[in-house]
Amino acid sequence: MGWGDLGVYGEPSRETPNLDRMAAQGMLFPNFYTASPLCSPSRAALLTGRLPIRNGFYTTNAQARNAYTPQEVVGGIPDTELLLPALLKRAGYVSKIVGKWHLGHRPQFHPLKHGFDEWFGSPNCHFGPYDNKARPNIPVYRDWEMVGRFYEEFPINPKTGEANLTQIYLQEALIFIKKQQAAQRPFFLYWAIDATHAPVYASRPFLGTSQRGRYGDAVREIDDSVGKILDLLQDLKMTENTFVFFTSDNGAALISAPRQGGSNGPFLCGKQTTFEGGMREPAIVWWPGRIPAGQVSHQLGSIMDLFTTSLSLAGLELPSDRVIDGLDLLPAMLQGRLMDRPIFYYRGNTLMAVTLGQYKAHFWTWTNSWEEFRQGIDFCPGQNVSGVTTHTQEEHTKLPLIFHLGRDPGERYPLSFASTEYLSALRRITPVVQQHQEALVPGQPQLNVCNQAVMNWAPPGCEKLGKCLTPPESVPEKCSWPH
Amino acid sequence: MGWGDLGVYGEPSRETPNLDRMAAQGMLFPNFYTASPLCSPSRAALLTGRLPIRNGFYTTNAQARNAYTPQEVVGGIPDTELLLPALLKRAGYVSKIVGKWHLGHRPQFHPLKHGFDEWFGSPNCHFGPYDNKARPNIPVYRDWEMVGRFYEEFPINPKTGEANLTQIYLQEALIFIKKQQAAQRPFFLYWAIDATHAPVYASRPFLGTSQRGRYGDAVREIDDSVGKILDLLQDLKMTENTFVFFTSDNGAALISAPRQGGSNGPFLCGKQTTFEGGMREPAIVWWPGRIPAGQVSHQLGSIMDLFTTSLSLAGLELPSDRVIDGLDLLPAMLQGRLMDRPIFYYRGNTLMAVTLGQYKAHFWTWTNSWEEFRQGIDFCPGQNVSGVTTHTQEEHTKLPLIFHLGRDPGERYPLSFASTEYLSALRRITPVVQQHQEALVPGQPQLNVCNQAVMNWAPPGCEKLGKCLTPPESVPEKCSWPH
Repeated sequence: MGWGDLGVYGEPSRETPNLDRMAAQGMLFPNFYTASPLCSPSRAALLTGRLPIRNGFYTTNAQARNAYTPQEVVGGIPDTELLLPALLKRAGYVSKIVGKWHLGHRPQFHPLKHGFDEWFGSPNCHFGPYDNKARPNIPVYRDWEMVGRFYEEFPINPKTGEANLTQIYLQEALIFIKKQQAAQRPFFLYWAIDATHAPVYASRPFLGTSQRGRYGDAVREIDDSVGKILDLLQDLKMTENTFVFFTSDNGAALISAPRQGGSNGPFLCGKQTTFEGGMREPAIVWWPGRIPAGQVSHQLGSIMDLFTTSLSLAGLELPSDRVIDGLDLLPAMLQGRLMDRPIFYYRGNTLMAVTLGQYKAHFWTWTNSWEEFRQGIDFCPGQNVSGVTTHTQEEHTKLPLIFHLGRDPGERYPLSFASTEYLSALRRITPVVQQHQEALVPGQPQLNVCNQAVMNWAPPGCEKLGKCLTPPESVPEKCSWPH
Repeated sequence: MGWGDLGVYGEPSRETPNLDRMAAQGMLFPNFYTASPLCSPSRAALLTGRLPIRNGFYTTNAQARNAYTPQEVVGGIPDTELLLPALLKRAGYVSKIVGKWHLGHRPQFHPLKHGFDEWFGSPNCHFGPYDNKARPNIPVYRDWEMVGRFYEEFPINPKTGEANLTQIYLQEALIFIKKQQAAQRPFFLYWAIDATHAPVYASRPFLGTSQRGRYGDAVREIDDSVGKILDLLQDLKMTENTFVFFTSDNGAALISAPRQGGSNGPFLCGKQTTFEGGMREPAIVWWPGRIPAGQVSHQLGSIMDLFTTSLSLAGLELPSDRVIDGLDLLPAMLQGRLMDRPIFYYRGNTLMAVTLGQYKAHFWTWTNSWEEFRQGIDFCPGQNVSGVTTHTQEEHTKLPLIFHLGRDPGERYPLSFASTEYLSALRRITPVVQQHQEALVPGQPQLNVCNQAVMNWAPPGCEKLGKCLTPPESVPEKCSWPH
């Protein structure tokens, strides 16, 4: 989902009354960022509070490549990483993930091995349908075992886009909340729905209801579901003790627009890029009675802050044996404070850009290769900023392109290199980047090796269902990450 | 001001708390249009309820040209046009215009000759400073006589952007409202501020306060002033009988961005063009107790509707001797009704495009000429939609380019000519356009002739001030409208 997909962020059809109400009753963050322009690394960052370059969710196979966890990826979240649910358990929290995990699909990466107590959802994206010969359909798990596969037990109609998954995910969320409330147990629910990821889907009552086409139908169903979750919290009188945050893992995939992709509002490009459209996200916090209603915070926020903020809320200490990139946002949320902090934009192991205050410096610019672009793969459709949305990897490490995001949120007008404004922005940014890079110890890259044999051929539980498939011969190879 | 300049429309810095509150207490129109991508014709359309092609605010000097009323224009609003204040007078309304008139600056076009009872403001844009030799500085009028000139008695500091004009305009508005309230007279106030028009300006308390630069300072001062006007209406307990509407006369001038131009949000291009960025406008109606709070109307609205709606509010009949393009929006505002109607997009006398429902058909595409573009005049900076943002005038009258504005508000993906969706949209649009064009009787074009002698050399009242200048010889010539 993109920054511009919510009414409260200016989507013209304004079809998100529940998320807009969530913002009206809570606090909106217009300057909130994910940690990667791609799904898996963002989610790993959310759950570890650490940049993908630290937690291993990146590739070194080629310069500045976006990598994720399709079925053939061998890696996943390392055992050495401490995940939010595992830490929250120390304070008595029960944790559930509903929806897409995406931190690795092989047994050792299973969410219940990393702190979650319950899981309903899939390890990978709902791409497909597959033939179960060259590629198996993605399994859907309940806890330790698969309970079916997408396009089989969990149908997604590729033609109509009909699927009941968001409704199923919603029920999973509501039941989990009720159960914890009944047991008076503190809980962490990670509701990781994926209906706005191509192929986008919605259930029948929502199909065809949006002015925005099928993508909008999916947004409307998510919005409706968020409303139902908030309503339940209100009905159960749990609002005072429940902290709710809504955000997205990357900008709208403009490559799938207009039928399968959303809107990044006034921002440049989308998913796969380190322009604002790729990494600035909708973000709303809701905690009636604690966080004042109708506020807007211009704090630069990161998805990794949710890790740190959650630990803070639970009265837990941060792990002291590792670098945590997330910030505790409670001072911003409760006292309206603004904390100075950088936002780093990576592709793979390449630091593409950094934002500090209102200034964003690009050290590398790239959208995708000419070769891909000529095949019609366009991450910036209709947009073209000369020297910025480049199709060759352009290095600017010596003299970064700097934009003022307040005056120029669309990254269209680089500051003049000769201006005092440029020089003073550069003088602020340089030491922050230097410090970051000097102290950086990259994690073991997890997304370098692929192997057809590791795909979801025979997930645990497949025997009971009679749905085990035979894997091909194990042939590890370098994953190919074209962009 | 552009669609994307208000927080409620998704401006990331969210610096318009008063306009956002106006929307929260009133009704927001995300699909509201001006009648021309340029100032003078839009304002003439607002006050006559008629398209510029009818009321004469266009040129036939060349194909598809945007014309307005600089000092050297000979024409202005014809006496045959019926203006809103003149009609409202029949119901006992007192009318005042504060700010930019722009419907002609020669004596016969004076606002007080066209129904207004009071005026404080200027006949033309606050361009300048001029040397009073080749061009005089623009006068500022109080009612029938000039009381000074911009950059002289009414300073605008070209370097710092400091000017007190919005504060003066605000005081004019507040005093007028108080006076009518004291006298218990119904009134029409046309508060036509222009601080966001380049050269943008703000008063000292607002300068440097915006995250968006000087343009943002101007927006903040306008927003603050709107808040003060609404507060006064509330303090005087006038809200139940006062209908307030906020909108703009054209999209943000991206050619002046980022320092002097604003944002059109997710829309294509800006001022001067008939893409959405040029003509879709912020629009908020506020009438507490009558129009329900926090509503959004997807009615296709037009600036000309304010004419018709105002007459309806005053219990007056529409003139029956002429075509009125404006619609009465009260059913949309009071009962949430949606009325089917077209929006026509003109440049000069050329019908460039039409929107009907969610479909927009372009009969002509053009931004500006290659010659201008190569000189750096860019109405679509950073945007380039192949075959759409053209620099040659491309005719599509036989087979218009059609966009679905719900799925594709940025006009990036024309529907396939072969699709059933295209054909059915075209079938709906064709008769509407045909009917419009067959019935159309263009007015006498007012913006064809220019003459240095008609500039503001010696406006009425100049003698008292000792500020009369000597006009040059009268040499009427065809105005040159390059785009």
